[in-house]
Amino acid sequence: MTELAARLAAIEPFRVMALLARARELEAAGRSIVHMEIGEPDFESPAAVVAAGIDALQRGRTHYTPAAGLPALRESIASYYAHRYGVDVPPSRILITPGASGALLLAMAALINPGAKVMHTDPGYPCNRNFVRLFDAEPVSVRLDAADGFRLDVQRLREAWQPGIRVLILASPSNPTGAVLDAGTLREIAAFAHKRGATVIMDEIYHGLVYGEPAPTMLACTDEALVINSFSKYFGMTGWRLGWLVAPQAMIPGLDRLAQNIFLAAPTMAQYAACAVFKADTLAQLEERREVLRQRRDFLVPALRDIGFGIDADPQGAFYAYADCSHFSDDSQALCERLLEDVGVAITPGLDFGAHQASRFVRFAWTTGMAQLEEGVRRLREALS
Amino acid sequence: MTELAARLAAIEPFRVMALLARARELEAAGRSIVHMEIGEPDFESPAAVVAAGIDALQRGRTHYTPAAGLPALRESIASYYAHRYGVDVPPSRILITPGASGALLLAMAALINPGAKVMHTDPGYPCNRNFVRLFDAEPVSVRLDAADGFRLDVQRLREAWQPGIRVLILASPSNPTGAVLDAGTLREIAAFAHKRGATVIMDEIYHGLVYGEPAPTMLACTDEALVINSFSKYFGMTGWRLGWLVAPQAMIPGLDRLAQNIFLAAPTMAQYAACAVFKADTLAQLEERREVLRQRRDFLVPALRDIGFGIDADPQGAFYAYADCSHFSDDSQALCERLLEDVGVAITPGLDFGAHQASRFVRFAWTTGMAQLEEGVRRLREALS
Repeated sequence: MTELAARLAAIEPFRVMALLARARELEAAGRSIVHMEIGEPDFESPAAVVAAGIDALQRGRTHYTPAAGLPALRESIASYYAHRYGVDVPPSRILITPGASGALLLAMAALINPGAKVMHTDPGYPCNRNFVRLFDAEPVSVRLDAADGFRLDVQRLREAWQPGIRVLILASPSNPTGAVLDAGTLREIAAFAHKRGATVIMDEIYHGLVYGEPAPTMLACTDEALVINSFSKYFGMTGWRLGWLVAPQAMIPGLDRLAQNIFLAAPTMAQYAACAVFKADTLAQLEERREVLRQRRDFLVPALRDIGFGIDADPQGAFYAYADCSHFSDDSQALCERLLEDVGVAITPGLDFGAHQASRFVRFAWTTGMAQLEEGVRRLREALS
Repeated sequence: MTELAARLAAIEPFRVMALLARARELEAAGRSIVHMEIGEPDFESPAAVVAAGIDALQRGRTHYTPAAGLPALRESIASYYAHRYGVDVPPSRILITPGASGALLLAMAALINPGAKVMHTDPGYPCNRNFVRLFDAEPVSVRLDAADGFRLDVQRLREAWQPGIRVLILASPSNPTGAVLDAGTLREIAAFAHKRGATVIMDEIYHGLVYGEPAPTMLACTDEALVINSFSKYFGMTGWRLGWLVAPQAMIPGLDRLAQNIFLAAPTMAQYAACAVFKADTLAQLEERREVLRQRRDFLVPALRDIGFGIDADPQGAFYAYADCSHFSDDSQALCERLLEDVGVAITPGLDFGAHQASRFVRFAWTTGMAQLEEGVRRLREALS
């Protein structure tokens, strides 16, 4: 029997994977399933992106790029920051990565020593705490509550802080809550971390997907944070596996060395294709998609409240509602299983996002079309009333 | 100033990257450079692969696949093992990864605890020792010598072994030496490791690129090893970033969990495209390319010997010769710099592959066309005679 690394035991499976597998089983047996568990919208990649990908293949763009990515793509991202956010981020601070996952891996590898403490939000993106465990460090959580719209602030951070925390990882907009942090809060968090010698890793992969004021970027508040972004969500390029990392200039040589060793380079045709997302008509198409997602949110959230789910604040970004299901069950995992088996509705149990009140919450995703959402709501009403 | 993880200081830059950057500078200034430093052949991806990639994009295959990869691709690889090697590897033991890099990352993450010892060959693939450092473990080297054709055997392993070694990582064919291990040696190494409770990670990414007897796979010798392979080298798909990992069945759930967290999934269109490599006419085309590479080797190796480089045994696989340059210099790094500046020939210094006699060796790659190789040899003669 092969002796495994200790970290493997600490890395939990996602509960939703078992549910998804069961959903596929039921579908294979002829059952209809409404998928509100999947963190990937039903849209295809924008036509211009697909066309640019095909063009890259036809031109034989199938060789390695530099580890840091295509210079033209790094420049396009810099220019996007200038035009959309009014912040000056030189291309030299931008590294192209295989998905935001590659960016998270680089950031964590560069910052986390074994045994260090890393603060993350609970609830939060499930992979974060597992990346911390990958580097044999200790995840420490700061709890977020529905009553505050699941928004992190300095007061909460101060109360949960412990000596020895070296890194703080947070997201805006947030998965699973859709909470968006304002610029004042970002600045306060950056100053708080700076004072304690901790580095902020800021996950901005749902940027662009906001329904009120645009989400401010941490890059406008500090040059010391590492900011992760992705072509997957707003830009509609999930399967291409492409993201980026913005880091302090002084860290770039070390991060580039890590990238050369860990993944060599991001996929080449994806990098050429991504250059097309910044065209005016592609961006216009992405804004139309955001409107479609907003309409779905505006239908789903009130309907869920009407059924009896607790959603205190409207989710401001991403495509998720983190809903209190304690009116129906004190075991959200069991509720998810029951809803799948009884009425064919797939949602994600709170346990995937942390431990804090996890058995009271479930996540709904509006990543499927309106007709499916309406059918899902009808089935939920049938099962729960 | 951001506080960095200690491992970052231990991860060295590749010497060849500075040389490559200088070569690009010289080229931008109008100089002609013969590239014999690059580990990527000049061939484009096979036409059927490109066509399958385009088809996947046109069909909207731009969403995530399962973390373990497309079932059809896992089945194709299993069937390839059955037909090409006569070994029975069930698809359930095969995980599709973002490049062989993703497979190495999974394997190391699953096996290496901080502080553990991991044995690797010197010379060997430079990223191996850096992956060991990524997980805060200690690389321990076993030295290989030109007189033995740089082939590892159990005798050498026994002499270099230390208590506490948990993992042995080796490659056949080898980068940078082109050495191929026979089935008897693989079996002895597997038995040696098994007896000591160590796990073998076997890098087979240059499989298919052999010029004598086909290289045997470790999978024919033991079910306990982790075997890494890639669509990059033999299959001509470098920029697509696609590889695979074969692991013992009992490790698959843990590895799948790691994959879900670390990279979510390999690029989707690359996975669809890779299904086309196993077609008979694509395999025939790849065999023709192997013949082209053989002709390049058969020209280059004798020519280098004639100039005065020491290459004891003909490289049996990959597309590299690891050549003794002590006839010209006792500082291979300085020699590489001088050859680049003086006659525009780019090769890789031994230091990138380890410490053992590194200042006496350089690596030549026959990844460029015959005309370029002839020109390179002419320039080397001019500079060194």
